Amino acid sequence: MEKQKNIVIIGGTACGPKAAARARRLDQKAKITIIEEEENLSTATCGLPYYIGGVIKNQSKLIARRPDFFKEQMNIDVLNNTRAVAIDRKAHQVELLSLGTKTTIRYDKLVLATGGIPAVPNLEGRHLGGIFTLTKLKDAVAIRSLIAPHDIKKAIIVGAGLIGIEMAENFIAQGLEVTMIEALDWVLPAMLDFEIAAPVEKHLRSKGINLILGQRVAGFEGDADGWVRKVVTKDTAFEGRLVLLALGMKPNVKLAQNAGLKIGKLGGVDVNEYLETSDPDVYAGGDCVENVNLVTRQKMLAPLGSTANKHGRVIGTNVTGGRETFPGVVGTFVIKVFDFNVARVGLTEAQAKKAGFDIVTALVPSYEHATYYPGSKEILVKLIADKATGKLLGGQVVGPGDSAKRIDVLATALSFGATVDDLANLDLSYAPPYNSAMDPLHAAANVIRNKRDGLARGLSPMAVKEKIDRGEEFILLDVRTLEEWNARRIEAPQTKFVPIRELRARLEELPQGAEIVTFCQSSIRAYNAQRILEGAGFKDVKFLDGSIAGWPYEVSGTKPFI
Amino acid sequence: MEKQKNIVIIGGTACGPKAAARARRLDQKAKITIIEEEENLSTATCGLPYYIGGVIKNQSKLIARRPDFFKEQMNIDVLNNTRAVAIDRKAHQVELLSLGTKTTIRYDKLVLATGGIPAVPNLEGRHLGGIFTLTKLKDAVAIRSLIAPHDIKKAIIVGAGLIGIEMAENFIAQGLEVTMIEALDWVLPAMLDFEIAAPVEKHLRSKGINLILGQRVAGFEGDADGWVRKVVTKDTAFEGRLVLLALGMKPNVKLAQNAGLKIGKLGGVDVNEYLETSDPDVYAGGDCVENVNLVTRQKMLAPLGSTANKHGRVIGTNVTGGRETFPGVVGTFVIKVFDFNVARVGLTEAQAKKAGFDIVTALVPSYEHATYYPGSKEILVKLIADKATGKLLGGQVVGPGDSAKRIDVLATALSFGATVDDLANLDLSYAPPYNSAMDPLHAAANVIRNKRDGLARGLSPMAVKEKIDRGEEFILLDVRTLEEWNARRIEAPQTKFVPIRELRARLEELPQGAEIVTFCQSSIRAYNAQRILEGAGFKDVKFLDGSIAGWPYEVSGTKPFI
Repeated sequence: MEKQKNIVIIGGTACGPKAAARARRLDQKAKITIIEEEENLSTATCGLPYYIGGVIKNQSKLIARRPDFFKEQMNIDVLNNTRAVAIDRKAHQVELLSLGTKTTIRYDKLVLATGGIPAVPNLEGRHLGGIFTLTKLKDAVAIRSLIAPHDIKKAIIVGAGLIGIEMAENFIAQGLEVTMIEALDWVLPAMLDFEIAAPVEKHLRSKGINLILGQRVAGFEGDADGWVRKVVTKDTAFEGRLVLLALGMKPNVKLAQNAGLKIGKLGGVDVNEYLETSDPDVYAGGDCVENVNLVTRQKMLAPLGSTANKHGRVIGTNVTGGRETFPGVVGTFVIKVFDFNVARVGLTEAQAKKAGFDIVTALVPSYEHATYYPGSKEILVKLIADKATGKLLGGQVVGPGDSAKRIDVLATALSFGATVDDLANLDLSYAPPYNSAMDPLHAAANVIRNKRDGLARGLSPMAVKEKIDRGEEFILLDVRTLEEWNARRIEAPQTKFVPIRELRARLEELPQGAEIVTFCQSSIRAYNAQRILEGAGFKDVKFLDGSIAGWPYEVSGTKPFI
Repeated sequence: MEKQKNIVIIGGTACGPKAAARARRLDQKAKITIIEEEENLSTATCGLPYYIGGVIKNQSKLIARRPDFFKEQMNIDVLNNTRAVAIDRKAHQVELLSLGTKTTIRYDKLVLATGGIPAVPNLEGRHLGGIFTLTKLKDAVAIRSLIAPHDIKKAIIVGAGLIGIEMAENFIAQGLEVTMIEALDWVLPAMLDFEIAAPVEKHLRSKGINLILGQRVAGFEGDADGWVRKVVTKDTAFEGRLVLLALGMKPNVKLAQNAGLKIGKLGGVDVNEYLETSDPDVYAGGDCVENVNLVTRQKMLAPLGSTANKHGRVIGTNVTGGRETFPGVVGTFVIKVFDFNVARVGLTEAQAKKAGFDIVTALVPSYEHATYYPGSKEILVKLIADKATGKLLGGQVVGPGDSAKRIDVLATALSFGATVDDLANLDLSYAPPYNSAMDPLHAAANVIRNKRDGLARGLSPMAVKEKIDRGEEFILLDVRTLEEWNARRIEAPQTKFVPIRELRARLEELPQGAEIVTFCQSSIRAYNAQRILEGAGFKDVKFLDGSIAGWPYEVSGTKPFI
């Protein structure tokens, strides 16, 4: 008779239960045990902000499976309210602590799905009451129960990343005043470039968020009861009795580290493509490991439930004798920011430059579907590609329109090493309620193709703003209609207004040697104008990437785009 | 001095204007002329059904560019209300007819963007008044102007393809009674397999469409004024004074054919990857040409505005001396059917079999995003892959949820020859308002992986229905909960009910030699049950693909899914 395999899984949120279920389907005889510190398993931690906001009414909605489900349906043993204290790799056993009692459990194959822990800065007052992080259901319950009966009116969020912004929306949903403090100069700084973050920032402010950018929190002050009263920055202080620290997650690797398993440079458990750790009898997956970034082939942290679930399947296969691989991730990310859908994939411009790429970008304001069909909403698309090869490196899409669809297309394209030529010819679905004949991604890919071919010459809004601010001599040529000019303008002494339909006839108004930067609403006419001027012999013509619709700075007049 | 190039483009809807604009950007000196039969260019013909339905209020919304736009902004000559009568390839000139006057125009490079013409069957009475096709703005105007003042209460649509179904929705929007007659046995028969068309059919019926399937129209009867009164089929006749023939489009190749250009086997102009016809000075694009299907590498017809626009860019490049290629299409298609989003890509099961593939499929009922986040809507996903290699061949997604996003991911994956392993590991965007941790495509890809690995054994609903109808001896094992069993059931004498949580304890109720087909709501538990039974020594166990949620036949009790 075959020996019964003993599979022990530490962690019961996403990767762990998935690995257990997969292992069970592959091996009906194995003994499979999940160790979980909390009461419940398979908690939908991504839903916690929405539970606090009341969008998800009931805690029970967040618990996909009660502990008894695993035994009854899957014949999987669950040790909940149990903490794994140490791993003895030589003896193949794990030391457990449950209700003060120590026990051990033996394993043939061990799975570490220990997740992440919130980053907490080593600041004075960080242990005061009223200062929270949000990773577990109990955190959400504590925060929600504090809001209603304790008459808390204000919340201060430290960090404008994923959790910070989701919580900003949900605190507002609960009627709180919200101040959000971010040390860097724009929101979602690890995810977005400045000009894409700018409309998100505007949107947050329009929803009443008091957004403090470029200020680092220095400490917290409390009252006599040990409850927080103030969040202190270098320059000022913000009063509040509810503080959320949303400074990102770190891999929870204490167990692995103490057991002498290899930890990667980014602080996650080091695993190979089979998700094996440095010990072939120990696997690891989910938020506690490092992943391969398929764009750079470097390791990266990608703590997401989606990745954790994929890891779980691979591990479930491999602990039962299979040999499945996990190829890696492309840094896909989406977040709802009130009425905006904000998504990104691959490398930002800053990340691509840091990784050593010589890049070319496109910034394209567009619409989610044909504008003649009702209800089409705006999106702003940025693409980043390698200049030499045209290989796609990353993309960002924001706005009230459908961003997630475009990011999923880009994520798929990036996984296959697509070039902008590939992207421009993708046979994406088209009917007026769903798209334009040319998807915004097609348009953006074509901008990069035109730039690579030397036809289109773009200048980023940041570069143009610098030229304006430095008082440089150039012509910022607005080629829109008089109606558009009257409605809104980029106010700069360098601005000159010549509608494109008059351009061919008014060429003599433009000095031949001048540097000209054309713009319109979305850059289609600006690009045409650039080509007309070049055809007429002008030598130094560029267009403003994204034109007025993608301009991240102030515009006089009515709101131009998103 | 460089000779001025003479570029003549026949056809002003999508491919033609795009080719013209691209050519202008590349060559500021060329003489570029568009010949168009109608008054307006760049008409959004995909919006015509919604104009008839009143969703698009105003004709002007459908005209993206007035004729004078081309001259003023692009220096492109437009000859509208002008028909190209013949091409003299030797003389490099086209004979034109405008307001009864014949002229000729010379070309260096000629572009055929002559579009499609509606298929009209050679039936008695087809020229009666009140019988329409819908391809031009004037058709839409004629239909819309007929509905309101003429007190027409009923419309009969012949053909349940794209235009037929879009018009069914829009006639209903205008308060008409609608009968739709389709010769084949299900709706969108060229696009969908039966089990995916089945919920679309139910949805159409639920919206009041009188859907007549499997009946071929035999002719039309009119009144003394020559106006249609009846649509006659073999068995019966349907009364109505407004008839729409929606039997698909054929490439409009008359000019090309008369000029001796090569026509392909499917009836479209034969072009190479540069979109050159058999004459290197004549290019063709849009609905009039055949495309390469990237899945089969065979030619196919793909008359869509999206493809036409991409063709236009390629042609614009090549007529000005460039050398750009168009790789082909993957048969992507999306249609709004009232509250359903219906999309497909690649090959259907029937098409894949016809193309000689040995296939494996998945049928997965799922939700567009995390079910714990409010508002998640249902989708039913079918995937088709090559059994030997796991290469993806096609996909279909229907339901009220977001189908288009999934089809765009599949379209991208198909373009790169993705396998189901690739698909299962795609890093798609995840946050509760946008997706589940595992996208429905991941789930479907994993079903196919499990089938290919010999772990999961599925049986299609059609195969199970046949077994039931033949009275075969087997056990149709329902492993849902008692609550689910009480709510709805597949009624068959072969059905046996054992909830999965009791299955391990009640194995003795199942005869060891029996053929067992398990099912649940969506097949997750059915697959687990299959594995449990196999682990217990049962040799002939399968699960019902898609389970009760994907069951295309009658179910007793409440509506189970979409």
